[in-house]
Amino acid sequence: MRLFCEDGAAISDCVIGCSRNYVKLNLLHQAKGRGMVNQIILHDYWRSSSAYRLRIALNLLGLPYTRHPVDLAAGDQVTPANLALNPQGLVPTLEVDGIKLTQSLAILEYLDEMHGAGFLPKDAQGRARVRTLSYAIAMEIQPVCNLRVSRHVVSLSGGAVSTEGWMQHFIALGLAGLEPMLTRPGPYCHGDQITMADICLVPQIYNARRWAVDLAAFPVISAISARLEPIPAIAAAHPDRVKPAA
Amino acid sequence: MRLFCEDGAAISDCVIGCSRNYVKLNLLHQAKGRGMVNQIILHDYWRSSSAYRLRIALNLLGLPYTRHPVDLAAGDQVTPANLALNPQGLVPTLEVDGIKLTQSLAILEYLDEMHGAGFLPKDAQGRARVRTLSYAIAMEIQPVCNLRVSRHVVSLSGGAVSTEGWMQHFIALGLAGLEPMLTRPGPYCHGDQITMADICLVPQIYNARRWAVDLAAFPVISAISARLEPIPAIAAAHPDRVKPAA
Repeated sequence: MRLFCEDGAAISDCVIGCSRNYVKLNLLHQAKGRGMVNQIILHDYWRSSSAYRLRIALNLLGLPYTRHPVDLAAGDQVTPANLALNPQGLVPTLEVDGIKLTQSLAILEYLDEMHGAGFLPKDAQGRARVRTLSYAIAMEIQPVCNLRVSRHVVSLSGGAVSTEGWMQHFIALGLAGLEPMLTRPGPYCHGDQITMADICLVPQIYNARRWAVDLAAFPVISAISARLEPIPAIAAAHPDRVKPAA
Repeated sequence: MRLFCEDGAAISDCVIGCSRNYVKLNLLHQAKGRGMVNQIILHDYWRSSSAYRLRIALNLLGLPYTRHPVDLAAGDQVTPANLALNPQGLVPTLEVDGIKLTQSLAILEYLDEMHGAGFLPKDAQGRARVRTLSYAIAMEIQPVCNLRVSRHVVSLSGGAVSTEGWMQHFIALGLAGLEPMLTRPGPYCHGDQITMADICLVPQIYNARRWAVDLAAFPVISAISARLEPIPAIAAAHPDRVKPAA
């Protein structure tokens, strides 16, 4: 059976997943080579965890993109130019398919849906597990360790709280919650496919090292991270590979 | 054409969405009436935003559930019993379909996939927008205002930071980022369907009122919230409706 989309394009790469009372068919267009992929622009900051996630994802997908740096240290995130792209005054923003997207995890889901990336498993329970692991990082750790939060607490406390102390406390607390959730055999967070959870983990471990969090307490996390980091698409997204010249 | 799942069940309710280079078919089993819905147990705390989201979702779906309260004020979240359910030491946990799920947004996505709830739109761009709005609340506001974060900062600062001051600062900052993102005609966050973004918004506005955040600065958010709150399934999930007797 051949299938066609409303614009007449042939559809290929049929993936069928069935989980109890739900069946999903993902049918990807034969889009590549038909000029449907617009130029992709990533508005990022070299040290932002959220931006780092998108560099990893775009590299894994092999999608070429242009970086437009937004210097968080200089306050560029709240300029009218960035607010027009990202009303929350954050990074990253991704310009793709003629639209502007914000919030890194929403963008990862979009890229997964549009490109069949495999960032989410095919079964509903697997997707729930990968999202849960991702949110254990992207909701429970990263927002609390956001620059604007740590700056606020350090400033308000009059020096009683240090940036490093704040980061160490909440990164260690979050990783302690994540470690016992990683019960499934690897090599990665959810088996042998690199998922959204892995894409969240690598930048979080970069941040843990940056703030001298003792990772010895988290052997499963450390082992998964050690397998992910050397992968070329992931290594190429590392902050040190994209940071501006001093 | 009739379709069947691997267990021989007929498939009904075919929904087809096409967005540029991606086509998705969601085919829902004729599951209801076949005894496939197990007893649902929600481990929650009456005042938790994340648990409040799930009460709204289950009510909207018309799924009966039993509440097992976890008293966060008494520290029940870190008991061995709760840690066995929720390794992060948080609420909510949902027992459904014979599995245990944590992280409220992962559970909302799961319920949407399994029950065709419409919490996410059918088009990829719409889904990205609803997730972005949801994360603007569930990642940027709620985790920073989590009880364990505010307690830590109040304690560390030796009284220089008050709980109310902390909450007001970050809830107002987060809502200020969200307000200009709500550009699409209502009545709700993403048109006339109640989505995950609305399910995140209502508990956040409850919290904003609890901490005396001035909502006059956010007229779009206030108007959407005022339309959502009287809906019976949403009103029935309100903390005051489920809190323990004094």
